[in-house]
Amino acid sequence: MADDMLMIGGESFTSRLITGTGGAPSLEVLEQALIASGTEITTVAMRRVDPGTAGSVLDVLRRLGIRVLPNTAGCFTSGEAVLTARLAREALETDWVKLEVVADERTLLPDGVELVDAAERLVDDGFRVLAYTNDDPVLARRLEQVGCVAVMPLGSPIGSGLGIRNPHNIRLITEQAGVPVVLDAGLGTASDAALAMELGCDAVMLATAVTRAQSPLLMAEAMRHAVEAGRLAHRAGRIPMRHHAYASSPMAGMLDASPEHPAF
Amino acid sequence: MADDMLMIGGESFTSRLITGTGGAPSLEVLEQALIASGTEITTVAMRRVDPGTAGSVLDVLRRLGIRVLPNTAGCFTSGEAVLTARLAREALETDWVKLEVVADERTLLPDGVELVDAAERLVDDGFRVLAYTNDDPVLARRLEQVGCVAVMPLGSPIGSGLGIRNPHNIRLITEQAGVPVVLDAGLGTASDAALAMELGCDAVMLATAVTRAQSPLLMAEAMRHAVEAGRLAHRAGRIPMRHHAYASSPMAGMLDASPEHPAF
Amino acid sequence: MADDMLMIGGESFTSRLITGTGGAPSLEVLEQALIASGTEITTVAMRRVDPGTAGSVLDVLRRLGIRVLPNTAGCFTSGEAVLTARLAREALETDWVKLEVVADERTLLPDGVELVDAAERLVDDGFRVLAYTNDDPVLARRLEQVGCVAVMPLGSPIGSGLGIRNPHNIRLITEQAGVPVVLDAGLGTASDAALAMELGCDAVMLATAVTRAQSPLLMAEAMRHAVEAGRLAHRAGRIPMRHHAYASSPMAGMLDASPEHPAF
Amino acid sequence: MADDMLMIGGESFTSRLITGTGGAPSLEVLEQALIASGTEITTVAMRRVDPGTAGSVLDVLRRLGIRVLPNTAGCFTSGEAVLTARLAREALETDWVKLEVVADERTLLPDGVELVDAAERLVDDGFRVLAYTNDDPVLARRLEQVGCVAVMPLGSPIGSGLGIRNPHNIRLITEQAGVPVVLDAGLGTASDAALAMELGCDAVMLATAVTRAQSPLLMAEAMRHAVEAGRLAHRAGRIPMRHHAYASSPMAGMLDASPEHPAF
Repeated sequence: MADDMLMIGGESFTSRLITGTGGAPSLEVLEQALIASGTEITTVAMRRVDPGTAGSVLDVLRRLGIRVLPNTAGCFTSGEAVLTARLAREALETDWVKLEVVADERTLLPDGVELVDAAERLVDDGFRVLAYTNDDPVLARRLEQVGCVAVMPLGSPIGSGLGIRNPHNIRLITEQAGVPVVLDAGLGTASDAALAMELGCDAVMLATAVTRAQSPLLMAEAMRHAVEAGRLAHRAGRIPMRHHAYASSPMAGMLDASPEHPAF
Repeated sequence: MADDMLMIGGESFTSRLITGTGGAPSLEVLEQALIASGTEITTVAMRRVDPGTAGSVLDVLRRLGIRVLPNTAGCFTSGEAVLTARLAREALETDWVKLEVVADERTLLPDGVELVDAAERLVDDGFRVLAYTNDDPVLARRLEQVGCVAVMPLGSPIGSGLGIRNPHNIRLITEQAGVPVVLDAGLGTASDAALAMELGCDAVMLATAVTRAQSPLLMAEAMRHAVEAGRLAHRAGRIPMRHHAYASSPMAGMLDASPEHPAF
Repeated sequence: MADDMLMIGGESFTSRLITGTGGAPSLEVLEQALIASGTEITTVAMRRVDPGTAGSVLDVLRRLGIRVLPNTAGCFTSGEAVLTARLAREALETDWVKLEVVADERTLLPDGVELVDAAERLVDDGFRVLAYTNDDPVLARRLEQVGCVAVMPLGSPIGSGLGIRNPHNIRLITEQAGVPVVLDAGLGTASDAALAMELGCDAVMLATAVTRAQSPLLMAEAMRHAVEAGRLAHRAGRIPMRHHAYASSPMAGMLDASPEHPAF
Repeated sequence: MADDMLMIGGESFTSRLITGTGGAPSLEVLEQALIASGTEITTVAMRRVDPGTAGSVLDVLRRLGIRVLPNTAGCFTSGEAVLTARLAREALETDWVKLEVVADERTLLPDGVELVDAAERLVDDGFRVLAYTNDDPVLARRLEQVGCVAVMPLGSPIGSGLGIRNPHNIRLITEQAGVPVVLDAGLGTASDAALAMELGCDAVMLATAVTRAQSPLLMAEAMRHAVEAGRLAHRAGRIPMRHHAYASSPMAGMLDASPEHPAF
């Protein structure tokens, strides 16, 4: 819908599905999946290597006209993340960065203290920072306050496929946010992505849910529809939940339909 | 997708979203919503009256080329349902019927004993019966055994918007079913519909989730995308759930990206 | 609590935990677990054999003063169940029976049609019937109407340990029931049993959750506390759920606590 | 159980239920509820006033022999919390403190950055710090690393009664923790408390679930049983979850029970 653009970092996008490249079985499959997803932003890890796809991922993205969003995956401290972001800015000529500072390799959960520090330094340095964070409303607000252009709370741990473990927290975040909220990490299937949008997220970010699906192509298409479905449903205003049944139409007294005048 | 048609009652359909008409604020809104939903089958109640829309609902459906599926909503006994189905067949010249036999007006839950009896009689009488049922796998199997062309388990009580209360049962039903399974009743928003399809349902049926939404038009469009999303995700084969994180790509040892050779 | 007895079949009990014997590793372990559970009613299968425990289970129950409740596990038709109940009545000199009529060996789910038929016949024959059923409120009501002294809806399939899959349905059942509701089947751990009672069930029935636990003795004790906890919580009237936080006490303006007059 | 003591801050306790006093309708009701709960530790707010109960709460706790755990509720910065803790130490002659630093009055959610800072300062100052935190495993670990003697993750916002919104995170915390984990905040009813213990928590802390229940006395008793139930279940080792049914005992071939030799 032309009148429902995603505004982020001062630019506008038609698609609300942001993708990653990790886990793709081949460059060809990745390219097909990216096309099927309709994505306009794809994040690439500056510190990780995808064997067999290194380097040429950028070529694919350029050919498809997809914006490259460098990320700092694999950084465990504020210092590493700031350095990685600066190298990315030089290499890719973009001041956008998806900031990731994780606490350890096992959980890949964000380290809030390091994250806030890195965000402050990068914002001061002129970056447009999209911050990957946990689902804590307080941390999300602080990231917004230090100047991030988007906050990216997780649904569940990276790659877990557990979906949105705490919808309540995601709603607390979207209710209060003054910048776009992008649900990032943990989504496993289409209904997860739709739910994220229904909770008020502005966009969804995912990688392995598509790249490691049995058919990345079909799942990419599924996710495109799911994000659109969730966004539309959010805008549509859903019916309330009721404890008991509610007939869709009032009951007519007696059976009075006739061939000439059926009663609907 | 031309290669992924819904086969039901010996006929094939492109859309997997079946709609009802109850609750629409006006015929105009209903017509717009039906178009936006992409539906090819719409059910109409033979025993209920939608004030202001009586009669002309049929005109709308004919104009849109949508198949009319008469239902027996409002019937509390097998006898009433059979009579209603026969009147519908005469009035609408179709041997398709969505069979509803509910236990009471408050819960609108199916009465299993009456339902099986009515299904047997209608099948014997040459009807193609799509049976609205609860989420009991045993009752669903029995309805298939007596010859129903589709079983339509509920997600939650009609009009409740509670979504799918028992996904486990729905999966037990779809795992065993030899006829199409249509998730019917209780859906409230897009992610509910996507989940239904991911659980293996062949189609989704809904009415008030669309007609009573704040914007029926937007919600109809949302549901169209949601059903497609869920179907594609089901076919795509989702990633497994993991208790812990799983990095989307193997970790590179040290930071080695350079402006010339970024490492992705 | 002496003033909160379970009334069932015209008799009263202090304990609200009904147990089964299947799955116990030995008679000794079973006996210890039964004692720890505080149970006053234990059901035994007339058609199943517990290798190594046959026969002497009855001795244990008699020694412990626990009422024996014969059940018709393993019956697939109304006829089998009625015959089994009659044999049990002769063998055990009790007109109590836990009626089970399941649809197949794989799901062990009740067959509603056969179940109602058997219940009617047994009630006519003077039995006090406690009917194992699914979580369908309509079927539960019909079983009450034909004269069962208790309805026993499942939480999830027998032995699955999935807990209560559909709390909404259990609540619909307890809201309407005029006879005791006993949550039967599927419970896996203590919080499941507490939840059952909080939903308004009058008692809980379980077997494998205790007998197949790593320590049947500890789990039996856990379940005894859990049932009591859930019952007390149900009677106590819980606080409502709120979307936002709610301070446990009003905020004092400024810090004014002093060593002499701390402000609590 | 004498062999299953709670060890915390170098001391041991029989009860695993820690209570708060806020919200009690009267001192008399509070005293009865404390007795019924079996609690051995009760936290009191140094910066909040409970009208009508100020001051004398301490008398009640002393009379009942319950350890007083001062808390810093109402503090929004590290500095406020440190000051409050020091005043509490002087006033109450204890170096134990439940550290709360919340971000705002509406959510009452912990502010991770301020919290870690305050914890470090208080540990350096010789306090035994029990830190109220969100359910982020990384923050919990950091609090342990700076020397807290216990971490107290929330189930959901204070007073919300929403129970444990993210059991997955709580389990991640208990799996890794080297100090006691006390589930704090959000619990609404007995099954919530049992679940907390089953997830591996060492204790449960609650206030309004009891004090604002319709009957604080009954709910206090319920919670005592629930904590015991959950702890025992955790130690017992629950059965695994299965997708399908699992008969509690192997099926005997044919009906062979006789009055003399019933087959169990």
